[in-house]
Amino acid sequence: MKEITGTTRVYGILADPIHHVKTPQRLNEYFEQIGHDGVCVPFHVTPDTLATVVEGLRRLQNFGGFIVTVPHKTAILAMTDDASDATKLIGAANVVRRNADGRLIADMLDGEGFVRGVLTAGYEVAGKTAYMAGAGGAANAIAFSLVKAGVARLTIANRTGAKTEDLKHRILTLYPQAKIQVGTSDPSGHDVVVNATSLGLAAGDALPMDVNRLTQDQLVCEIIMQPKETALLQAAAARGCRVHYGAPMLANQIPLMAKALGVPGAGL
Amino acid sequence: MKEITGTTRVYGILADPIHHVKTPQRLNEYFEQIGHDGVCVPFHVTPDTLATVVEGLRRLQNFGGFIVTVPHKTAILAMTDDASDATKLIGAANVVRRNADGRLIADMLDGEGFVRGVLTAGYEVAGKTAYMAGAGGAANAIAFSLVKAGVARLTIANRTGAKTEDLKHRILTLYPQAKIQVGTSDPSGHDVVVNATSLGLAAGDALPMDVNRLTQDQLVCEIIMQPKETALLQAAAARGCRVHYGAPMLANQIPLMAKALGVPGAGL
Repeated sequence: MKEITGTTRVYGILADPIHHVKTPQRLNEYFEQIGHDGVCVPFHVTPDTLATVVEGLRRLQNFGGFIVTVPHKTAILAMTDDASDATKLIGAANVVRRNADGRLIADMLDGEGFVRGVLTAGYEVAGKTAYMAGAGGAANAIAFSLVKAGVARLTIANRTGAKTEDLKHRILTLYPQAKIQVGTSDPSGHDVVVNATSLGLAAGDALPMDVNRLTQDQLVCEIIMQPKETALLQAAAARGCRVHYGAPMLANQIPLMAKALGVPGAGL
Repeated sequence: MKEITGTTRVYGILADPIHHVKTPQRLNEYFEQIGHDGVCVPFHVTPDTLATVVEGLRRLQNFGGFIVTVPHKTAILAMTDDASDATKLIGAANVVRRNADGRLIADMLDGEGFVRGVLTAGYEVAGKTAYMAGAGGAANAIAFSLVKAGVARLTIANRTGAKTEDLKHRILTLYPQAKIQVGTSDPSGHDVVVNATSLGLAAGDALPMDVNRLTQDQLVCEIIMQPKETALLQAAAARGCRVHYGAPMLANQIPLMAKALGVPGAGL
């Protein structure tokens, strides 16, 4: 990468553990691509010290902000000064811009990254019906973005019914016209099917939905990047569905992250 | 430079202003040379926020420490947990290592960098007599290192007599056998002559000593890097003295800084 000098703007990624993160590589590559004199470095921060670290970083005059990942996405919100309405309702953020006055502005781009990934792959979302398994952190972000992107109807299926109802209520706060349903493990009757749970990450995980109900007219999407071919996607492909992998969700977020961090000329 | 990943160890340089610093370039080049997966980035920190920034940085688990420069060299000492005896007596530090437990260990390498620079240029210091103009921050560090390096006698000349006496007293605390004299503006009768003031940095500055008393058997040394050819060095060269530029003081500190930061395999 480009040489770091006294004029280079600094960005970070806050995570615990840190060794596996890929954002510094991709963001630095993107900075070079658009000609931005900036560098993203990894910051290994444990939950008990997050607030102290953030107060320190906030005061670095040449610091542009940071990416936030596991396990800090929820906790970070209370340590920032402002956020978009959707981010506040989601209750989690994955990028925080530092303004020149030291104010920290939070945003959640997981959902937008997912939707952009689907659109970039050539599929449509607006006007389609969508089924989403999960009501946790990633699911919250994706649900808001699917509704924002104009799905005709969103069905949310989660083992804990209370979480699904709560998510539905929060989406309706921002998008009162949205059609949100609480679903079962049966994904049939939807154009787009999304696994927004972590089921599939570990070998031997249960399937996130009843794959015997998948039909070949459906697009089945993952957010899990490792393994690339989850049991869900294998089953979907075997049933003739089109499949969409987990990787584009992060890849499509890089320009969005840079833009949210205030990088000049960044964005899609 | 090398790609930054989740396993890259992070270091910083704290300064105000920051744009002119050269340490990131040189330290990162050195890391690459010795095969260390580390990166040094610039941190622009104002004096009023230094303590808060340091408390934040202290808690970054993958942070190795930082270089300190103007105007934080004195203030930083009270924010660290330990330092070498000389560093404590000098009352200033320019490098702070972060131990795995978060403890911060301060060191002052300006003097050692200067002496190593002179030695590397092929000159001897041990057993020689030295004249030093100045009793400020840089002068303090250089005086301790000249005595440590074994000068037969050190003459300190400064406009403020009280500062000279105070410096002499502190050196004698650590090196009771040292021969320290308080001098005048006349540098004659010494093998090595050092300008450790900032006179010469700005055009039109007064000369730091009486250059008409320089003799051709003397080595005349600068710590000012910009301009390279100060009025003192020009006068010294005109009088047939050997001259030693300001740049080696920093160049020779890079391996020492890396070693003080705990970088495996670093050092001279």
